[in-house]
Amino acid sequence: MSINSFGHMLRMTTFGESHGIALGCVLDGCPPLIPITEAEIQVFMDKRRPGQSRFTTQRREPDAVKILSGVFDDDSGQQVTTGTPICLMIENVDQRSKDYGDIKDSFRPGHADFTYLEKYGIRDYRGGGRQSARETAARVAAGAIARKIVPGMRVRGALVQVGVHEISRDNWDWDEIDRNPFFCPDAEMVETWTTYLDDIRKSGSSCGAVIEIVVDGVAAGLGAPVYGKLDQDLASALMSINAVKGVEIGAGFSAANLTGIENADEMRMEDGKPTFLSNHAGGILGGISTGQEIITRFVVKPTSSILTPRKSVDKFGNETDVVTKGRHDPCVGIRAVPIGEAMAALVVADHYLLHRGQMG
Amino acid sequence: MSINSFGHMLRMTTFGESHGIALGCVLDGCPPLIPITEAEIQVFMDKRRPGQSRFTTQRREPDAVKILSGVFDDDSGQQVTTGTPICLMIENVDQRSKDYGDIKDSFRPGHADFTYLEKYGIRDYRGGGRQSARETAARVAAGAIARKIVPGMRVRGALVQVGVHEISRDNWDWDEIDRNPFFCPDAEMVETWTTYLDDIRKSGSSCGAVIEIVVDGVAAGLGAPVYGKLDQDLASALMSINAVKGVEIGAGFSAANLTGIENADEMRMEDGKPTFLSNHAGGILGGISTGQEIITRFVVKPTSSILTPRKSVDKFGNETDVVTKGRHDPCVGIRAVPIGEAMAALVVADHYLLHRGQMG
Amino acid sequence: MSINSFGHMLRMTTFGESHGIALGCVLDGCPPLIPITEAEIQVFMDKRRPGQSRFTTQRREPDAVKILSGVFDDDSGQQVTTGTPICLMIENVDQRSKDYGDIKDSFRPGHADFTYLEKYGIRDYRGGGRQSARETAARVAAGAIARKIVPGMRVRGALVQVGVHEISRDNWDWDEIDRNPFFCPDAEMVETWTTYLDDIRKSGSSCGAVIEIVVDGVAAGLGAPVYGKLDQDLASALMSINAVKGVEIGAGFSAANLTGIENADEMRMEDGKPTFLSNHAGGILGGISTGQEIITRFVVKPTSSILTPRKSVDKFGNETDVVTKGRHDPCVGIRAVPIGEAMAALVVADHYLLHRGQMG
Amino acid sequence: MSINSFGHMLRMTTFGESHGIALGCVLDGCPPLIPITEAEIQVFMDKRRPGQSRFTTQRREPDAVKILSGVFDDDSGQQVTTGTPICLMIENVDQRSKDYGDIKDSFRPGHADFTYLEKYGIRDYRGGGRQSARETAARVAAGAIARKIVPGMRVRGALVQVGVHEISRDNWDWDEIDRNPFFCPDAEMVETWTTYLDDIRKSGSSCGAVIEIVVDGVAAGLGAPVYGKLDQDLASALMSINAVKGVEIGAGFSAANLTGIENADEMRMEDGKPTFLSNHAGGILGGISTGQEIITRFVVKPTSSILTPRKSVDKFGNETDVVTKGRHDPCVGIRAVPIGEAMAALVVADHYLLHRGQMG
Repeated sequence: MSINSFGHMLRMTTFGESHGIALGCVLDGCPPLIPITEAEIQVFMDKRRPGQSRFTTQRREPDAVKILSGVFDDDSGQQVTTGTPICLMIENVDQRSKDYGDIKDSFRPGHADFTYLEKYGIRDYRGGGRQSARETAARVAAGAIARKIVPGMRVRGALVQVGVHEISRDNWDWDEIDRNPFFCPDAEMVETWTTYLDDIRKSGSSCGAVIEIVVDGVAAGLGAPVYGKLDQDLASALMSINAVKGVEIGAGFSAANLTGIENADEMRMEDGKPTFLSNHAGGILGGISTGQEIITRFVVKPTSSILTPRKSVDKFGNETDVVTKGRHDPCVGIRAVPIGEAMAALVVADHYLLHRGQMG
Repeated sequence: MSINSFGHMLRMTTFGESHGIALGCVLDGCPPLIPITEAEIQVFMDKRRPGQSRFTTQRREPDAVKILSGVFDDDSGQQVTTGTPICLMIENVDQRSKDYGDIKDSFRPGHADFTYLEKYGIRDYRGGGRQSARETAARVAAGAIARKIVPGMRVRGALVQVGVHEISRDNWDWDEIDRNPFFCPDAEMVETWTTYLDDIRKSGSSCGAVIEIVVDGVAAGLGAPVYGKLDQDLASALMSINAVKGVEIGAGFSAANLTGIENADEMRMEDGKPTFLSNHAGGILGGISTGQEIITRFVVKPTSSILTPRKSVDKFGNETDVVTKGRHDPCVGIRAVPIGEAMAALVVADHYLLHRGQMG
Repeated sequence: MSINSFGHMLRMTTFGESHGIALGCVLDGCPPLIPITEAEIQVFMDKRRPGQSRFTTQRREPDAVKILSGVFDDDSGQQVTTGTPICLMIENVDQRSKDYGDIKDSFRPGHADFTYLEKYGIRDYRGGGRQSARETAARVAAGAIARKIVPGMRVRGALVQVGVHEISRDNWDWDEIDRNPFFCPDAEMVETWTTYLDDIRKSGSSCGAVIEIVVDGVAAGLGAPVYGKLDQDLASALMSINAVKGVEIGAGFSAANLTGIENADEMRMEDGKPTFLSNHAGGILGGISTGQEIITRFVVKPTSSILTPRKSVDKFGNETDVVTKGRHDPCVGIRAVPIGEAMAALVVADHYLLHRGQMG
Repeated sequence: MSINSFGHMLRMTTFGESHGIALGCVLDGCPPLIPITEAEIQVFMDKRRPGQSRFTTQRREPDAVKILSGVFDDDSGQQVTTGTPICLMIENVDQRSKDYGDIKDSFRPGHADFTYLEKYGIRDYRGGGRQSARETAARVAAGAIARKIVPGMRVRGALVQVGVHEISRDNWDWDEIDRNPFFCPDAEMVETWTTYLDDIRKSGSSCGAVIEIVVDGVAAGLGAPVYGKLDQDLASALMSINAVKGVEIGAGFSAANLTGIENADEMRMEDGKPTFLSNHAGGILGGISTGQEIITRFVVKPTSSILTPRKSVDKFGNETDVVTKGRHDPCVGIRAVPIGEAMAALVVADHYLLHRGQMG
């Protein structure tokens, strides 16, 4: 019952604070003989890494991942997993020894300063300590390994809404994702978001976002009733990401407006195989994968660290105003894309192993 | 890693199929000396019980709960929990020995017939077997006990949207809930839903719904970073309910449209205590309760069992049309209200014990 | 973290008290399509059942097991597991509504009366409540299913010591086990134990025993470092049985007296396969099976319920003498044989599934 | 279900191989505000550290522990735990880049070389990789923190048997422990063991040992029926240590020879409190602490790495002889004392938190 662990058979335990010595995770239960290098993991680290564009925080963290354990050379000299726990460590480099005087006793609205202090009687105020989204660097590292566990699986994510601006699904082009700083699949939306975010940033505010994760190449049959459902575990995984306030699968909340006639994903035989004619279910029925694309979305609230003063109190009971100085993301949702991908990869890989265990 | 269990310290393991001998659960980790009777649990069972109005299935199940273990008389002769596992059993009475010939080999669209067979190579087709929402009867029973664990906690739920019709929050009145067959808090909406659902039913279709659960009387400090967050566990709990396709906390998906300035829940001192001026967070920051109302919503898709034929295939690869005969809910979302309440009660009670363990 | 559950992937959760309505377990994670009937399980129940000879308690319990869930007919009409949780229930029949006046407030030496009351502030004094070894009936039922999960696995147990009398290993004959009321593999020892136990019983005392469990037909490679070792899980499983005070693997405590030269299990090739020349390790190296026989022993303390008065106190702080009236086993170790077998079967089956999950 | 984790609420996950970059653990669930420094932990590391006398391996490892996360300064400037996961890292310094040519393909008798390769299809042969007892350095570090969680708890261990020589309990003196290189509580035995071990070492062999762990200052009521018993978890904890082949509680295996009359720990009132007149139970009844000393023993087999050649095979199917060159402990049991202490501390602290959670 580790409350800093996630997963059934493929189990990630993370550690570390924003401005501590290092953060990272132990990934346990990974099968042996999977080729993996630090360089392969680093590709995904770099997607999440701050300072990639003017729309993400300018904190200078190389986020260089180091594999401390769990790998060894196979007979051909290639580095592979050994089936033992893989510790992935990321050292914190840019721990500015700044003066925290102004925020160390105040509760930043929207942050967990108040709740951590209420719970623990102490909080590491340096960059938010454990509540910081820096913890997600460890998830991205673990997710890079998870991606290699399920043969044929592909995990992709995209930003589909920034503030009030939603993409058009007719324009969806996965290739577009890497051509803009937003993981945006709709080329026509990039300009709008750019202007919108520049304005938001200049106004000292921030905005929310919606991310969609699509997993394909997954066979039917993954998932475990009743409390280890694939959609349940995706919901848990994504809701555990900082600032996430909602998760939906397939049609999601719009299913409320559909009738049973509309919502039914009908079936026909195609090339001798049962095939679904639509995917309102998001690739999951009864908690088990249908073999279609697994589709999930999650919403990230507007960054709580903003340049505009907000009313608050401090731990001594004084009323105060809090304003965030320095570098912050105007839309943390952008960097949530690789994090969501990592969590989805971990969930599906976990269920792949679980299914293999129960079913042979 | 029981895949049919839920909870960290307060752990519910459910068993049973729709048309088997009995279903139920084992609730483990419940503190001792909590007064509990079958009659107290039955109150909540009756809220979920089918056949309460023409808007829920007419299956005749008394859903009488029996406590098989874990209780004993205290010195005063009152029946209380003993700290040992509580087994709650509900016998299936209305197991019509009907002919399943027409559906035993076909995959009902929207149901998990296809995925169960893909996963297990066998499925109990009698009423859906384990995939049936009858499993949730056990949750409601366990939830009735969970409600008594946290002193001062109150868990209430309401239906806030049926199909395209959403209630007005200005009309919200908790007392209204028990006066209509919909758990609807908006008296003015009852008529609309009645007509709408009658039409839906007559047309051989069904509709979706959104349920809101509100928990109050919970102190600040419950919840456990990073993979045992209160909101994460609520998401997991609610998404594990049959037909649920989305979960949100506080502002939820609408947070995407807010700016950081709007979304910040500012604080002031009131009666000498830190107080929040709004609750976009839904009572949870950084996965830990703020002491405010905990607010969560989930969406239930339209009932998949409808009288209108839908295209499907059978397990032999033949194309076929599937139509549901007999008794079914036109809107399963209605009966999801007491289920959502039960799951929320279980999650908060679980974190209450977890917090007490770590913090003393 | 269910404290009344055991197992990683194959997870048994037990419930029930000695004199409650019923006891049983939920077995979760069992693969589908395994043929199982109540009659098959009953065979093992009957081995543990009281009243089989004058050396076990005369409590009249049929211990009839009922499968409440998790099974269904396959296409050929044979009853098989479905992959969903299997609830096994045993109703308590012989719950004599006797007067507990004399023991309900006193602490029986050697029993957990004192510790349960200290822990929970309440205890079910009827037959020991949850601390009673009746709980092990559920384990035996679950074990009967576990035996069928690992192809080729055979689990056998024997009583190797009763009080001061140990069997001779030269006389070991597995066929002998079913020919005497002691599960004794040494025909020459039966007479001695008979006389010894009759004397013990007449003197109003009881004696301890040592049980050996041998599992064969298990491939090399099962077990999981570092905290899911096969020997570790066997130790946990066996130590969880009532009255057990020690567990050893292979050479066990006698390994202290051996030198490294003697203790090494040397290897040679035989029929083209690596073969061990001895088995001091008990079939487990580094927590992983070697492919040899898995050998474990556990000691059961003398029955604490004896006819000879022992000094004690009651919950009001009065000094008193406690004597057990009525029916009890002079050597509870006898009935521990089928229980130990069941636990070993559960552990190995669990690791079989776990290994299959991680390794494919 | 992390197979490299241990504990219910206080959960340790270890990582690392003998000759990898680093090893360590993440300790999750530790309460906040416990003062802890690296120096305090180092005291216990040094007890386990190799090279302390000629009776332990001469590998030169400083075993310097580094706290990577989970601590922060409280208001008074003292470093305390924060309630978040504590990562403890020990860098491997003495990783001789020696030629493993002779052992990389052979199976060392008594080691897990064969079983790791059978399981994983790969093994890290450098110093035994993950199967090495170096992993226990992480346990000792975590145990140092666990010791501080339960107020009043004291955990002490002693070596009570080396090869055929057992101490006399009449000579037991805890102060003696630190005055000899064996953690021996019997001053008169030190000379005998010295000579015995010198002989064993010179003869190119090794010997086994028995360790006793005594925990006092623990209140009655800790432990959790039925599968989280205190003695069960101690058995699991100790059996998970490398080379351990048996565990016993209180009277242990000698209980087989006792009658129920002898074995009963009678009770009387003393100073107004219920008191036991003996402790055959080893401080645990029904899996729950009695408030007496908790007493457990475990046996460590003779070191498998010996200078005398033993018959083996290699992974290509060739028969070969294996001899261990270089530095090794003639009796690994010596260094197992601080490891056993650490595991016992972790188990009791875990149950302390668990009990507090369930009982308030």
